[in-house]
Amino acid sequence: MFVQSHTPFAEMKELHEKTVLVAGGERDMCRAVAMKYGFKSVVTPGDIIAAYPAIWPCSRVFRDYYTSFAKPLPAPIDPSDPSRCLKIDAMFVYHEPRDWALDSTVILDLLLSQSGRLGTLSPKNGDQSLPNRGYQQDAQPPLYFSNPDLWWAAGYHLPRLGQGGFRESFEGLWKAVTGGAELKKEIIGKPYFKTYEFAERRLRAHRKDLFPVRGAPMLRKVYMVGDNPASDIEGGNRYKSPFGSEWSSILVKTGVYTGGEPAAQPTAIVEDVYDAVRWAVKDSHWRDMDVG
Amino acid sequence: MFVQSHTPFAEMKELHEKTVLVAGGERDMCRAVAMKYGFKSVVTPGDIIAAYPAIWPCSRVFRDYYTSFAKPLPAPIDPSDPSRCLKIDAMFVYHEPRDWALDSTVILDLLLSQSGRLGTLSPKNGDQSLPNRGYQQDAQPPLYFSNPDLWWAAGYHLPRLGQGGFRESFEGLWKAVTGGAELKKEIIGKPYFKTYEFAERRLRAHRKDLFPVRGAPMLRKVYMVGDNPASDIEGGNRYKSPFGSEWSSILVKTGVYTGGEPAAQPTAIVEDVYDAVRWAVKDSHWRDMDVG
Repeated sequence: MFVQSHTPFAEMKELHEKTVLVAGGERDMCRAVAMKYGFKSVVTPGDIIAAYPAIWPCSRVFRDYYTSFAKPLPAPIDPSDPSRCLKIDAMFVYHEPRDWALDSTVILDLLLSQSGRLGTLSPKNGDQSLPNRGYQQDAQPPLYFSNPDLWWAAGYHLPRLGQGGFRESFEGLWKAVTGGAELKKEIIGKPYFKTYEFAERRLRAHRKDLFPVRGAPMLRKVYMVGDNPASDIEGGNRYKSPFGSEWSSILVKTGVYTGGEPAAQPTAIVEDVYDAVRWAVKDSHWRDMDVG
Repeated sequence: MFVQSHTPFAEMKELHEKTVLVAGGERDMCRAVAMKYGFKSVVTPGDIIAAYPAIWPCSRVFRDYYTSFAKPLPAPIDPSDPSRCLKIDAMFVYHEPRDWALDSTVILDLLLSQSGRLGTLSPKNGDQSLPNRGYQQDAQPPLYFSNPDLWWAAGYHLPRLGQGGFRESFEGLWKAVTGGAELKKEIIGKPYFKTYEFAERRLRAHRKDLFPVRGAPMLRKVYMVGDNPASDIEGGNRYKSPFGSEWSSILVKTGVYTGGEPAAQPTAIVEDVYDAVRWAVKDSHWRDMDVG
């Protein structure tokens, strides 16, 4: 099955009422995506630099771009009164960032802030004499990435850097700034657990709609069909269902993978999605089953 | 003495006749700087993306900026004929990069290329079965940074990332792309050797102008006066003169350093540059010396 990577964000209901930062993508298109997921107050790095150009002086050359879509901030950056400062409760990178320097600056500022209040600096950062000393231990906002891929196939004849390129750059910066601290973050998307678990919960909900009777048999077998061995197949192989189902992976030849030795070994290699479904139906002995 | 960090570039005469990449700074202002140093053929990442937008699709939103200053490339990117491809013989980062993603992409492409030909990929990259295997061992252009500072004091109330921020980001990306290879690069500027050596050669040339007689005594004592303990003073302390002179470091309180325990211990701490000169004159027993 093809899982839309972002969708676990729609389930973060406790954050939907708070203010979140969304980075990545062109203009503020990812703000619209986040609002569709249910987030009510979404700030972009572009909003921040349009209101406070001094936060990253090197993006002055891109000012027209930012002012063309920026929305007013829900709160100011006011170092004289930290309690008034814009408070960010979670940070999301939804798509490839365009201005890596600006996005790095804003995310770094928030990771070093006190409780996610932009413009403040946590006194606990790296201070060994304080309780809860060290980085990311002063209620800074958690950091989520929606896609782990270092490379993607674009129009150029060589692969281009993906969202993972930005993340690895930021890891380098974080190491230098903190003197080697580990960056705490969550990567959502294939081949990571949360995406597969999300997909399985959707499948179970769908099954419940199909068979709304008590005692209907549980979801026993799931087939992960995908074209990318390193993400789709790797994730399907690695996933251990918390609901007790058994997963198989089926690699098709109609996308990233076209033949040869795949980076991760699937349960089966077939031509296309139609063949994958036929393979799964046969493997599951579907005709023999009592589905309630 | 205050050393202008870039100046060693003016002495790279063997590169002045070749084609170099210059990244950093607004628009193509650093192209003008490089040409003043003597480089005849200077390409910027902006020139490259204006000619080949597909090389970094994520900078599409900044296209107007790049086309406003881009100059034609001296050669094309032509994967069908690598021998025609634009060949870069050295890469310089002269100032804070504005578009980290574009500059990272171009520098990375060149570090992975065959002999610095943009659009090619060296077959030796990481290949353990080939002679001279591994990264940066296939005549890729050397990479120079003009300033090591991670932070600088700008108009914002917290320090902002400097050129070192870009470099550390790129280090993170390089580690991910190569699976942990060390990035070979040269950082020019304080506290690094080359800058101090350059300064000493200038002092020696100046001394020769002052005392153009055979047998005039050599430069014996040099005083490094600076306001930044981590760069000026650290570099002065660390520098071992290849010409046999003895260096002292004098920290002034009129800039970055204002008091307290300095990050590097100078030979002396004084109020300002005037006091530093008085201290040096006294320490060198200048009045007693026979200067030819």
